[in-house]
Amino acid sequence: MITIIAGTNRPASKSRAVAELYARMLSDRGIENRIMDLADLPPDFTTTALYDNTGKNEAFNRLSGMITTSDKFVFVVPEYNSSFPGVLKAFIDGLDYPYSFQGKKAALVGLSSGMQGSGLALSHLTDILNYLGMHVMAMKLKLAHIKKNFDGKIITNQLYQELIEQQIEQLIHF
Amino acid sequence: MITIIAGTNRPASKSRAVAELYARMLSDRGIENRIMDLADLPPDFTTTALYDNTGKNEAFNRLSGMITTSDKFVFVVPEYNSSFPGVLKAFIDGLDYPYSFQGKKAALVGLSSGMQGSGLALSHLTDILNYLGMHVMAMKLKLAHIKKNFDGKIITNQLYQELIEQQIEQLIHF
Amino acid sequence: MITIIAGTNRPASKSRAVAELYARMLSDRGIENRIMDLADLPPDFTTTALYDNTGKNEAFNRLSGMITTSDKFVFVVPEYNSSFPGVLKAFIDGLDYPYSFQGKKAALVGLSSGMQGSGLALSHLTDILNYLGMHVMAMKLKLAHIKKNFDGKIITNQLYQELIEQQIEQLIHF
Amino acid sequence: MITIIAGTNRPASKSRAVAELYARMLSDRGIENRIMDLADLPPDFTTTALYDNTGKNEAFNRLSGMITTSDKFVFVVPEYNSSFPGVLKAFIDGLDYPYSFQGKKAALVGLSSGMQGSGLALSHLTDILNYLGMHVMAMKLKLAHIKKNFDGKIITNQLYQELIEQQIEQLIHF
Repeated sequence: MITIIAGTNRPASKSRAVAELYARMLSDRGIENRIMDLADLPPDFTTTALYDNTGKNEAFNRLSGMITTSDKFVFVVPEYNSSFPGVLKAFIDGLDYPYSFQGKKAALVGLSSGMQGSGLALSHLTDILNYLGMHVMAMKLKLAHIKKNFDGKIITNQLYQELIEQQIEQLIHF
Repeated sequence: MITIIAGTNRPASKSRAVAELYARMLSDRGIENRIMDLADLPPDFTTTALYDNTGKNEAFNRLSGMITTSDKFVFVVPEYNSSFPGVLKAFIDGLDYPYSFQGKKAALVGLSSGMQGSGLALSHLTDILNYLGMHVMAMKLKLAHIKKNFDGKIITNQLYQELIEQQIEQLIHF
Repeated sequence: MITIIAGTNRPASKSRAVAELYARMLSDRGIENRIMDLADLPPDFTTTALYDNTGKNEAFNRLSGMITTSDKFVFVVPEYNSSFPGVLKAFIDGLDYPYSFQGKKAALVGLSSGMQGSGLALSHLTDILNYLGMHVMAMKLKLAHIKKNFDGKIITNQLYQELIEQQIEQLIHF
Repeated sequence: MITIIAGTNRPASKSRAVAELYARMLSDRGIENRIMDLADLPPDFTTTALYDNTGKNEAFNRLSGMITTSDKFVFVVPEYNSSFPGVLKAFIDGLDYPYSFQGKKAALVGLSSGMQGSGLALSHLTDILNYLGMHVMAMKLKLAHIKKNFDGKIITNQLYQELIEQQIEQLIHF
């Protein structure tokens, strides 16, 4: 079971659409998968699911339970302010430590609207996931100019399409 | 006016207590200052103050207004999962771009309960603040074993006390 | 006196050419400046100027002396393997600690042949320079597709030209 | 075959001694291994083995050949100026691209004389190795106060000894 995380709580995000693309491509290869969209986080999770309230918010627990019961992940993250969304980090801050990610495996995909890409976002996320014991696949995709290269369903940039196929093949065997 | 940011929304946090220490030390030197505590964020700000709702949440705007009207900052951040709190990044993600931090100046202080310190947390935060146009002072404090070295009012580690005094003097003249 | 560092020892590098561009633009504004090109490092400096041999290599000392006697710097660094050149770090490893950079100021410029730019290179360099006590200006330039955008004398990309002018103005007043 | 890299050219380094510890522990488990010590680099490799001279220096090629013919690595790196040694990066800059590390696997060990550890050094190295296609194991050891905790033969800190054993077991099965 591979869980694909749409790494922002923005409603109807590009990250969600790219997560759906990964889901279809994994299903085409016969790999069981599901999407976890941070848009489904309870609006007040930063107070009702963190610190003394860790574990007490049922809606949060439904999402965190998808982490606990998966061994492989794809993180699709947009670049916000030269890093990944704070909401994704706040979600991670609410997970049970240290077993949520320990010994598991992840592939990272960064989306950016501009040219310069999401290199720092993926570096920060790697630092955090490695700290939590999750192996991060070397091949990280930085999909730039996402509005031009992705129409919401299909990647229109042939190189990007090939890189995504490579990354998925690698993740299956990682 | 120096704004000291307690960089977590955990109620009654060590970061808040350290922010109060900086406030007292700045006041002792005749420098006007105030504390902005992320514990005062509205509980649902990640949905009601971001994306299409940017600028629409009055309680959020009271905090973001403290950013707009300051030129110098101290960020006091605890280490969560080898970085700084996701809630601080989510707060930054909700600020007006690009003028909130452009051309302003900041000193960073990291707190950690263990030995290894908050080096990656402060590096990630520097990447983000630099991207937003904020100059970050070279001297960043990594206060480790914070429970042992800070009793909630006073720094009990003499070296740390001297480093904080140095950092404050540098910030005043930065 | 601003020292502009051509941050690779590759002979006749693009970094050297961009350093000369900065030198001309600083001179046009009446600012005294000079270039330090790592191509002038003695070929065996990694053994004859480091560790027990620190300070003993005269040719190395001529370069390191340009660090000691400057207060402001421009670092022009190409992207090698998603960071800046190892030779620049080895040069820094041979400098006197902690006074070479303490309390000084720098602007960073990254060059890359591809699209994705030198973001991680400049982040790594910022970490190191901040550790050594050097304030790094928030505005860091990531000049991508450098062969297309720079003919060896003149920046042919109008946006890049304007960004360089802004960076130079900021550095003069930093 | 696991190649253990002593990641500095400092003669008779602590990194070399820790590399020998790893070699003994791997041999005890019946795993073939060898040490590559950057102290064996030709003194002028930064000019005779880089750029137009890539591949032309026989002494350099003997070391780079140990990279080509290994699939797993341990990098033992001391902290120099809040990162890893420039000489290691310069060595990497001289390797054949992109096949030297592509699809291979590494465990990282950082040594520091002080308390704060080598977190940034290992983060920078991870960025670079990931870029080159090398999977980096999540568990990275940051051995602080190395002079106190390692007598040149034996780790005298029981926790560190256990962590090294865990890391070696993980690397064997990574």
